[in-house]
Amino acid sequence: MSKRYSYIKGLYCPKCGKKHTEKEIHHLCSCGSPLLVEYNLKQAAQDWHKDDLVKRKPDLWRYHEILPVNNPENIVSLGEGFTPVVSLAKAGAKVGLHHLYLKDEGILPTGTFKARGAAVGISKAKELGVSTIAMPTNGNAGAAWSVYGARADIQTVIVMPENAAKITRNECQAAGADLYLVKGLISDAGKIVGRSIEKNGWYDASTLKEPYRIEGKKTMGYEIAEQFNWEVPDVILYPTGGGVGIIGIYKAFRELQELGWIGEKLPKLVAVQAEGCSPIVKAFEAGEKESEFYKNSSTIAFGINVPKALGDFLVLEALYETKGIAVAVSDEEILEALHEVAEAEGIFTCPEGGSLYAAVKKLKQKGFVSAEDKIVLLNTGAGIIYPDTIQDEIPYTELDATL
Amino acid sequence: MSKRYSYIKGLYCPKCGKKHTEKEIHHLCSCGSPLLVEYNLKQAAQDWHKDDLVKRKPDLWRYHEILPVNNPENIVSLGEGFTPVVSLAKAGAKVGLHHLYLKDEGILPTGTFKARGAAVGISKAKELGVSTIAMPTNGNAGAAWSVYGARADIQTVIVMPENAAKITRNECQAAGADLYLVKGLISDAGKIVGRSIEKNGWYDASTLKEPYRIEGKKTMGYEIAEQFNWEVPDVILYPTGGGVGIIGIYKAFRELQELGWIGEKLPKLVAVQAEGCSPIVKAFEAGEKESEFYKNSSTIAFGINVPKALGDFLVLEALYETKGIAVAVSDEEILEALHEVAEAEGIFTCPEGGSLYAAVKKLKQKGFVSAEDKIVLLNTGAGIIYPDTIQDEIPYTELDATL
Repeated sequence: MSKRYSYIKGLYCPKCGKKHTEKEIHHLCSCGSPLLVEYNLKQAAQDWHKDDLVKRKPDLWRYHEILPVNNPENIVSLGEGFTPVVSLAKAGAKVGLHHLYLKDEGILPTGTFKARGAAVGISKAKELGVSTIAMPTNGNAGAAWSVYGARADIQTVIVMPENAAKITRNECQAAGADLYLVKGLISDAGKIVGRSIEKNGWYDASTLKEPYRIEGKKTMGYEIAEQFNWEVPDVILYPTGGGVGIIGIYKAFRELQELGWIGEKLPKLVAVQAEGCSPIVKAFEAGEKESEFYKNSSTIAFGINVPKALGDFLVLEALYETKGIAVAVSDEEILEALHEVAEAEGIFTCPEGGSLYAAVKKLKQKGFVSAEDKIVLLNTGAGIIYPDTIQDEIPYTELDATL
Repeated sequence: MSKRYSYIKGLYCPKCGKKHTEKEIHHLCSCGSPLLVEYNLKQAAQDWHKDDLVKRKPDLWRYHEILPVNNPENIVSLGEGFTPVVSLAKAGAKVGLHHLYLKDEGILPTGTFKARGAAVGISKAKELGVSTIAMPTNGNAGAAWSVYGARADIQTVIVMPENAAKITRNECQAAGADLYLVKGLISDAGKIVGRSIEKNGWYDASTLKEPYRIEGKKTMGYEIAEQFNWEVPDVILYPTGGGVGIIGIYKAFRELQELGWIGEKLPKLVAVQAEGCSPIVKAFEAGEKESEFYKNSSTIAFGINVPKALGDFLVLEALYETKGIAVAVSDEEILEALHEVAEAEGIFTCPEGGSLYAAVKKLKQKGFVSAEDKIVLLNTGAGIIYPDTIQDEIPYTELDATL
């Protein structure tokens, strides 16, 4: 039986090693690096057993011991987490893979994996007494933080590019966010948010400037381990923009090793990017520790159009340490793969998710994955958020017709 | 330990009592009534215990004993079910209700509760050896049956009104359905489907002409009972179009009584309709057993624009037997309620779901529900399916601005 609700110890800097308390608001380290959360895992391993999970609710708070919220009263939840892992037997067989799976993060509040980061991030912000948060977004994160913010009575200020998915705007609006559009990119939105935070003293919820979002996303890794009965799969593919998901999953597996819940083996982590925006792939192929700003980036997979991620060095570390790889796929390959998965398996993914099946085909050809590998595609969102992805003509039929 | 995977016994007619085998394809009874599925609940009650559920996966197949699929190999699943029940503490307090909850069916594959009916209906169709199904739809059911059909290798023929939600078209398209639009209503689509089925020998998956969809939807009732620890809530509100959900929930509670898993108390079931299409409300207020066709129906809650439901007599029976009620709310009230729930609770519901909070306010004023009642709003889908529900102007900000 766990003696504490959370075994959080504090924040630390993965670059310079500096420690920070989690009792106060912190964003980046003084050295400019994102901060990560540290837990007292030795103590947790003694008090907490994976059998304790069996009777817990199927949401991400079942792992509260390794989440940063100390007081359960601060939890702001819409029932997020424990998304299904489904077999892609037919799509796998088509490309010679016998154990292909998809974890479907479309089945979350707001329809994307962003709900995980928002649930944990907003809960911790509530614990810290925050009243207003601000963030730039390509749409999905803004929608998620807006609704959790509303539930927590925390005001949200959101700035997004005007061509972000329309439905994400509406969701921000409905939840009462203070929403602004900008004729530019997420990086432009970020600059506006940066200046406004400085002026108004708002809490900065930008990717990786806020250290708790990653804790929410790491629960994907815990869930995969539990859903595979604590025998981790061989390979996990992740659509990589800001990279918080892949950083979180890597952190989860390292923590699970410290807890003694999984063995030495780690899944090979694969960062999938669009050819039109592939800074991580470029850096990986050159063996670099950091990426360079990717100029004139462009892809239909809007969520992974991130030219330079603040946590790029952590993403690359996760790839190197797990003997993973980075792969780029074209927009045409993404669309084709999206249709193939929908037709064979009945899963209508977002374009970001579609990129994964395109990528796994390439990795099979390359010999990076083999027929008997257990492979998980991490689909980050539902296709229904993007009504314009499919542009086919649909035939009309007459009222007196017989088909 | 259960000795059988399913305790299905056969089909029966709730109107004339005639029995039918479930080993062959059946649609309506020879008397014209929908058919219902019967189980050997006495045997199930002996073999199966609710404690057996604890270790099962959090999807609707955890109740396989009272679902119609005999062979688990026929199950076609995308991980659907066990959607969260979340507290609406703030929205409840605003109207003097202390125990208001929402069960969120937006968190399902395809974003609506239709996934439940499609999962079970397609699985049973697979067991029956069906190769092509056809159906008319207002959008959401078509999307759900298309994706599950794709997964099962069953061809789907879908006919929908041209003004059904665009994203549902795209989802049908992506899944490879044979999709047609019609310049008319779902009833017009139904006539085309009817003629085409007769000509081509397709399987009729129209609402309640297919007896297994309701079995999928009844799992909402099982889940509510389990999630409230087998002490059923006092009142459940349901947005009612075709009414399959409310019929299913009522059936679930009756079965749960036979299993001995709940006591004598039943929740009062409330059918919520739009003022512009309220045939059930009209029939209920007149004390009738059936409804009349509602002429010139119109509402923004597209999914409940059903002028005459084939199962109206079953819906009305469920209301009378549980001492429930039927309530109509205006489109303005629906939109207002949708915004209130989103702003207070962070849940962006579909308009159909929004109608429930509007209705519960009325029922509180009327004295039909009281402050201490445990009340569940059954939100049938995610707001993200309807990008046009919110039409507010969103301000732009300049690139060099500080907010």
